[in-house]
Amino acid sequence: MSYSIQNLEDGSSLFTSTEPFTLANGRVLEHWQLCYETFGHLNKQRDNVVLIHHALSVGPHVAATKANPKKGWWQAMVGPGKAIDTDRYHVICINNLGSCFGSTSPVTTNQVTSKPWAGDFPEVMMEDMVHSQKLLLDHLGIERLYAMIGNSMGAMVSLTWAIAYPDSVQRLLLTSSSYKAYPANIANRRIQQESIRLDPAFQDGNYEPDAQLNGFRLARKLGLYTYRNAAEWNRRFNSFNNIGMRDDEINSYMDYNADLFCRSFDANCYLVLTAAMDRYDVTQQYESLAATFGRITAKTTVISVESDILFTPQQQQELYQGLLKGRVDCHYINHPSQYGHDAFLVETGAFDRYLRVFLD
Amino acid sequence: MSYSIQNLEDGSSLFTSTEPFTLANGRVLEHWQLCYETFGHLNKQRDNVVLIHHALSVGPHVAATKANPKKGWWQAMVGPGKAIDTDRYHVICINNLGSCFGSTSPVTTNQVTSKPWAGDFPEVMMEDMVHSQKLLLDHLGIERLYAMIGNSMGAMVSLTWAIAYPDSVQRLLLTSSSYKAYPANIANRRIQQESIRLDPAFQDGNYEPDAQLNGFRLARKLGLYTYRNAAEWNRRFNSFNNIGMRDDEINSYMDYNADLFCRSFDANCYLVLTAAMDRYDVTQQYESLAATFGRITAKTTVISVESDILFTPQQQQELYQGLLKGRVDCHYINHPSQYGHDAFLVETGAFDRYLRVFLD
Repeated sequence: MSYSIQNLEDGSSLFTSTEPFTLANGRVLEHWQLCYETFGHLNKQRDNVVLIHHALSVGPHVAATKANPKKGWWQAMVGPGKAIDTDRYHVICINNLGSCFGSTSPVTTNQVTSKPWAGDFPEVMMEDMVHSQKLLLDHLGIERLYAMIGNSMGAMVSLTWAIAYPDSVQRLLLTSSSYKAYPANIANRRIQQESIRLDPAFQDGNYEPDAQLNGFRLARKLGLYTYRNAAEWNRRFNSFNNIGMRDDEINSYMDYNADLFCRSFDANCYLVLTAAMDRYDVTQQYESLAATFGRITAKTTVISVESDILFTPQQQQELYQGLLKGRVDCHYINHPSQYGHDAFLVETGAFDRYLRVFLD
Repeated sequence: MSYSIQNLEDGSSLFTSTEPFTLANGRVLEHWQLCYETFGHLNKQRDNVVLIHHALSVGPHVAATKANPKKGWWQAMVGPGKAIDTDRYHVICINNLGSCFGSTSPVTTNQVTSKPWAGDFPEVMMEDMVHSQKLLLDHLGIERLYAMIGNSMGAMVSLTWAIAYPDSVQRLLLTSSSYKAYPANIANRRIQQESIRLDPAFQDGNYEPDAQLNGFRLARKLGLYTYRNAAEWNRRFNSFNNIGMRDDEINSYMDYNADLFCRSFDANCYLVLTAAMDRYDVTQQYESLAATFGRITAKTTVISVESDILFTPQQQQELYQGLLKGRVDCHYINHPSQYGHDAFLVETGAFDRYLRVFLD
């Protein structure tokens, strides 16, 4: 049997394939796996599935479960009676290929060499994440999604999916993203990638498991800097009258967040995923913008955040314009906020309302 | 004699002092020097002086001269018939204390130890730059400036000056700056400083003169990233249809600029100057915002750039509000532009007009 599913102790599931998977770049994964979590029950018609695509930094643990009571990254949004109501919907979140939360990635073992992939992991594209996840849904007998929701990098996966498999998606929500990589984002990621690679402890990706990767920490600080708008940094720290105390607070905040992230995330995975974002462009395979977006049949909502300096509203207005050209039934919200790119994680009140309208 | 002036071959002048200079932090420079350039002639009344305060990355070479025909950093603005008309004005630009273009800094020799200061250079504040420059102007017999013009970090020096020595300034132009360090800027600089310090080649500031400082190059790339707005990055690179070619161009652009900068600038100086910006706050010595700005007698213009993500228009509106509270005769322009923080260097047409209005 090519595919199997194993239920893990922490409530997540592991989809394992011995069917080789050919990546967009031609390389082949002989064995591969996807880790995913589900919330709520699949109905008999199998038509109540909401697939959530997670952002770069997080994994499939969207909300706490009995088996894994740790708070999820979208805890406020997913649960009984919440905006993504698990009394109604069967929510699935799959760890993207290349990410370090259970799916095949630099931290898993290459079964051909019996060693972790580490720095030798092949490059992956958004298409690879999509096709691998589609195989999992097919295996689960889920043909059509009630809704697909993606945030940031997750929205790139969602959009790629809705174009590749239009009939499988009824509703599509894309938050804080774009339809292609933009130069300013590439530049930003390039600096982060270089910071990781310049660190002598990184050793071309073959670092010790417990290595202190200062370049990775620094990369994350740059990420953090751009995830929040200047106004949000000011709101957080401007109350300090003492310059020394304020600077200590800023340093501690950055150190704390970078440490937290670097303990839970893997540097090679970060390189693989950010490179996938660099190569992202949904129009590449099709004749035109209109032909690309014309494939989408899902009712689509695009949300940008007014103060997002990373995935600017302009990028998302261009995505919206593309959807209009493709005659997609779509809708655009420029969320007024000081919180920048991370608003979808922070402003749960507003996003609760957006999600309820979107799902109904 | 405590002070002397020496004219150098490249047309710049070196002001040397054997009078000890006590820095704001209490440390004393026993010997110190300031390098400066002048353009146009000082009139008999000595009342046609325009003092320009340069930004972080550049020095006193504002425009080409016979002795130094190399293009200056504000070539389009300074010269005969230009906005800052050297047929009318005697323009002076002094290299700030701590910067590597001739003034006392980590690259000059500590005459007590007969070695370059390198990593042992004391911390300097904007006040130190101001007081040292005031001693030079006093020595030159210049009591009152027709105008003082500062860009970015230069505007921090200018504003500090106009508050410390209000009677010495008639007109004040502050472009792309703020009245204090803001948390987002501190965070940004902190990442750059850390990048420099993490580099093993940096060796706590005691690097070899020809060392390849990759951390410094990376810091500069981050600087470059924030100096330009996302829209400007897109304008520059969005025409590439081939993803690989576009990414190569982005990488080359960043590499080229970082190399260019790191060849002309010193990493220790960069740390000293960015730390001075971190500690910048003109209100610290005075009772209130109104009391601080109430000292200024110069007619003042504040220019922000609409798309500046580094020194945001909001910071400069707060500066403008402070000036209004201090009942300063002032004027605010939010320059509409896609060029971000660097607009004053790029959009010479618009800044030509602003400068002509300001100086008349």
